[in-house]
Amino acid sequence: MNLKDIGEFGFIKRVTKDSIFNPSEIIVGIGDDCAVLPLDEKNYLLASCDMLIENVHFLKNKSTPYQIGYKSVAVNFSDIAAMGGYPTGVMISIGFPKENSLEEIEQVYQGISDICKKYNANIVGGDTVSTKDGLVINVSVFGKVKKEHLHLRSEAKIDDIVFTTGNLGDSAAGLEIVLNNDLLLEEQSKEKLLLKHYQPEPCLKEVELLNQARGLHALNDISDGLASEAREIAEASNVGIEIYEDKIPLSNEAKELALITKKNPLEWALYGGEDFQLVGTIHKDDFEKLNTTYEKVFNRSLYNIGKVTKEKGVFLIKDNQRTQLKAGGYNHFA
Amino acid sequence: MNLKDIGEFGFIKRVTKDSIFNPSEIIVGIGDDCAVLPLDEKNYLLASCDMLIENVHFLKNKSTPYQIGYKSVAVNFSDIAAMGGYPTGVMISIGFPKENSLEEIEQVYQGISDICKKYNANIVGGDTVSTKDGLVINVSVFGKVKKEHLHLRSEAKIDDIVFTTGNLGDSAAGLEIVLNNDLLLEEQSKEKLLLKHYQPEPCLKEVELLNQARGLHALNDISDGLASEAREIAEASNVGIEIYEDKIPLSNEAKELALITKKNPLEWALYGGEDFQLVGTIHKDDFEKLNTTYEKVFNRSLYNIGKVTKEKGVFLIKDNQRTQLKAGGYNHFA
Repeated sequence: MNLKDIGEFGFIKRVTKDSIFNPSEIIVGIGDDCAVLPLDEKNYLLASCDMLIENVHFLKNKSTPYQIGYKSVAVNFSDIAAMGGYPTGVMISIGFPKENSLEEIEQVYQGISDICKKYNANIVGGDTVSTKDGLVINVSVFGKVKKEHLHLRSEAKIDDIVFTTGNLGDSAAGLEIVLNNDLLLEEQSKEKLLLKHYQPEPCLKEVELLNQARGLHALNDISDGLASEAREIAEASNVGIEIYEDKIPLSNEAKELALITKKNPLEWALYGGEDFQLVGTIHKDDFEKLNTTYEKVFNRSLYNIGKVTKEKGVFLIKDNQRTQLKAGGYNHFA
Repeated sequence: MNLKDIGEFGFIKRVTKDSIFNPSEIIVGIGDDCAVLPLDEKNYLLASCDMLIENVHFLKNKSTPYQIGYKSVAVNFSDIAAMGGYPTGVMISIGFPKENSLEEIEQVYQGISDICKKYNANIVGGDTVSTKDGLVINVSVFGKVKKEHLHLRSEAKIDDIVFTTGNLGDSAAGLEIVLNNDLLLEEQSKEKLLLKHYQPEPCLKEVELLNQARGLHALNDISDGLASEAREIAEASNVGIEIYEDKIPLSNEAKELALITKKNPLEWALYGGEDFQLVGTIHKDDFEKLNTTYEKVFNRSLYNIGKVTKEKGVFLIKDNQRTQLKAGGYNHFA
C-alpha cells in the first residue's frame, strides 16, 4: 500500500484515529483549518502548521527566496483567519544544504519577518538543520480567537448565503503564466497574477470585520479551490451547497489569460487553489448589512456566490442546470 | 557566505535579531529550550519544534520507523521538561516520497502516538506532504508550566550545586555501536546502549519531582552534550561552572564499550549529546533533601557533578587541575 492508493486524506484519517489522550487540553482536534486549544476565559488558542518542500511546493528558479518565506507564513496565517482568529506567533524550521548561500536563506527570513511584522506576530522559535539537497520549511503558527468569534467548517445552516471575500482563480492563473512564460498577456496583468500566486495575502483584516457581523456561521480559507472548500463545509455541516456559476468572481486578468490560453477560468477558481480568500456562510438576512460595511471599509464588495441547502452534495448551478461537483473533480467539470 | 563559515548558532543569531513585533504575546523568545508565551493566570504556554531529516538525523536502515517517530517527539518533550513543564499537544508535519510504503509511515505514527499517550499529550494537527526523496519530520510541541515552576537557563546562582538526572554518554556510546557493528560487547549491553540512542525517554516524570524542590534554579536538557549545556547555563546566567570529572555519571556499559573501543567515555558524556537527561543548578543547602526524595521515588540518585562559580567559563576539574571546556571543544579535550 502506498499514498497513491489511498490518497493523502485517506492516509491522514488512518493514522490520526488515535490522537486524543488528554481531552481536557483540546477543544477541536484534527479536521479544521487549525486545532483549537483551551487558552483563557475569553479566548481559545489556535495552532496549525504547513511543510513546504523545494521542487514540490515551490521552484527556487521561479519565485524569489523572499516570496518563498512570505508565502510559507501567509498560508498559515490564512488558516488562522479561517477560524476567525489572529496570529500571535510562529515557529520556523528550515532545512537547507550546508553549501547553500546564506544570503538566500536570509532573504527567506526577511519575507517571514516582514509578514510577521505586518500582522503583529512574533517569531518565537524554530530549528535550523542541514539537508542533503533542497530547501525544506515548516511553519507552525499560533493564534488567538475570542470564543464568540470561533468559526468552524461545521457551522453552516440551511438557507445560509455562501459568500467569498474576493476573486478566485488568480493564483492558478499565475501558475499558468509560470508554466508558459511567453504568453501574450500585458506585462502588468502578468505581474498581478504572478504576485497572487507567489505572495498571497491572508484575509486577516477581512476576518476582523466579518467577526463583527451577525449571523456569520461556517468559514474556510480557499487553499485547495472553491469546490474542495465548499465540500469540506458541506460535509462537516451535514448540508449541501449550491454555487451559482455566473456569480463566481473572476478578475479581468484571469479572464483575459483564459481567452489567450483557451482555458476555462472557472476551473482555476473551482480546482486551482491557493487563492487564500475566505469562503463563508451567513444567515441570509445578515449578508446585505455585512456587505455594506465591508464595501465602506475595503472599497470592494463581498460576493454572494451560492446557498446552503438541505439536500447534500455540492452543486454548480448554470441556467437552472445542476452539476454535481465531485471531490477532486477536475475531470468531471465540463 | 555559507553555513560552514558562521555556524548554525551564528546564523540563527543573525536572522532572528528582528523577531518580536508584539511584545504582549511573548514572555521568553528565542534562546531557551522553549518559547514561553502568555497563557492564563497560573500558567505559561511552552512551545518548541525540531526538524529531522533522513540521512542527516537518522538512517532508515539503522533505527526502526517506530523509533524514528518515538524519538522525534521525545526530543521535543525533553525541551518541555527542561523548562519545568509538561506537554499537552504536538503537531506533526511529515514528508515522504509518493512511492514510500505506508506501513512504514504508519509505524512512524505508532511511535509518535505511543509516546504521546504515555505522557498525556494530544496529536492536534499536522501536515502530510510528498518529498522527492527521503523522510522529513517536523514536530511542534506545546506544553504548560505553572508560573512558579518555570526554569530558565539564565537562573543559575553562584555557589549552586550543578546536578544531573542520570548517566551521560550512553547515547553517544550507542552511536559508536551503530557505526561499528561487530564490537565484542555483550548483546544485552549493546541493546541497552542502542535503545538509549534510538529511543530516549524525556525526563518528564523527573521534572515533576524537581519542581517540588526548594532552591531549584537553572535547568537544561542535555541534547548537545554536557559541555555545551553547561556553557549555555553559564553564559545565560552570567556565571561560571566547574564540573568534577570523576563525578560525571557513566554507565557500566558505556565504560565497558570505551575499554573495547579505546575511546574516552567522558568525551561521549561531554560532547556526545542526545542523552536527554536534565542538568540543573540548585541552592547548595537544598540538594540533599531533593536527592533523598528523588531516591525514594525513582530508586536511583541525582548526581552532584559540579558547582556554579563567580569566575566565568566552564571548567573541568580533575586532581585539582582546571581545564577550560571550549564551545564545541572536542579537540581541546585531553
